[in-house]
Amino acid sequence: MSDQSVPTGESIQFKIIGLIRSPFKSPQNVPIQPAGAKGIKGRVILKKEYQAGLKDLAGFSHIILIYYFHLIQDFSLIVKPYMDKYPHGIFATRAPKRPNPIGLSIVRLLGIQDNILEIEDVDIVDNTPLLDIKPYVPEFDQREKIEIGWLTTKIHQLKKTKDDGRFIKKK
Amino acid sequence: MSDQSVPTGESIQFKIIGLIRSPFKSPQNVPIQPAGAKGIKGRVILKKEYQAGLKDLAGFSHIILIYYFHLIQDFSLIVKPYMDKYPHGIFATRAPKRPNPIGLSIVRLLGIQDNILEIEDVDIVDNTPLLDIKPYVPEFDQREKIEIGWLTTKIHQLKKTKDDGRFIKKK
Repeated sequence: MSDQSVPTGESIQFKIIGLIRSPFKSPQNVPIQPAGAKGIKGRVILKKEYQAGLKDLAGFSHIILIYYFHLIQDFSLIVKPYMDKYPHGIFATRAPKRPNPIGLSIVRLLGIQDNILEIEDVDIVDNTPLLDIKPYVPEFDQREKIEIGWLTTKIHQLKKTKDDGRFIKKK
Repeated sequence: MSDQSVPTGESIQFKIIGLIRSPFKSPQNVPIQPAGAKGIKGRVILKKEYQAGLKDLAGFSHIILIYYFHLIQDFSLIVKPYMDKYPHGIFATRAPKRPNPIGLSIVRLLGIQDNILEIEDVDIVDNTPLLDIKPYVPEFDQREKIEIGWLTTKIHQLKKTKDDGRFIKKK
């Protein structure tokens, strides 16, 4: 099968629906995943116009944040991810220099007041633009008998690995 | 805290990096989550120009597909989701009529040949535009002690619930 049926030249526009606030003012030293960010608190500030969409979300203990890696300027198809010294395809990593710089983190939801969500286990740099919030549901989002390829022998480094700024442009 | 610091009027452009193929030619009767789509096979056709980014992905048993709900024309902040007769905020559901119509599914990766990924447990309508592929990693993506709010008493319906087309415009 070729890729001839894939539309080309089309782009899709999304809007910024809010901001993610965190203690991390720059990518350096941000935990690379929520598992390394235990207890780190932050906030989601949703634009007021979307506040009605939060109805009944407070009953969920965890949410999926989908956001824009706004500090990334272009992409690489081959990257050296944080936890390895060997290069891998970008789609085999969670590195931010992706063809579409979309980030995904599962964070703990502590509470909601009006348009503000208090969150915990935040591995996201301050002022990151928010694209979507989804409830985290084990029946939708958890799988068993998982294999994790090249990460198998590297995953033990997760909690001590932090962003070293390698994916953003030096000023 | 107000939302005054949230930038307004800005939009973010993403590109279509591939297509998701599946047996579901229209949203009607699509399983509403991969858990209801066990054994359903499909394909990801990545554009050739991104093929190098697949290096080492084949070692992963599951991948996260992030895609564009291309059949959705506008959003609702309050929706009646598939598994309930009561309305909920859109962010407390996985319904597609979101402010940014971004979909997320975790599917099984059966194999990769060139730019084609063979996948299973596909709950996605045919020819859905692909935005990103991420490896699914339990240490990143699984949490314990989860509460699921309004879904708690509804989740047992998951496997028998199918899309009834309620979120797309009637022709």
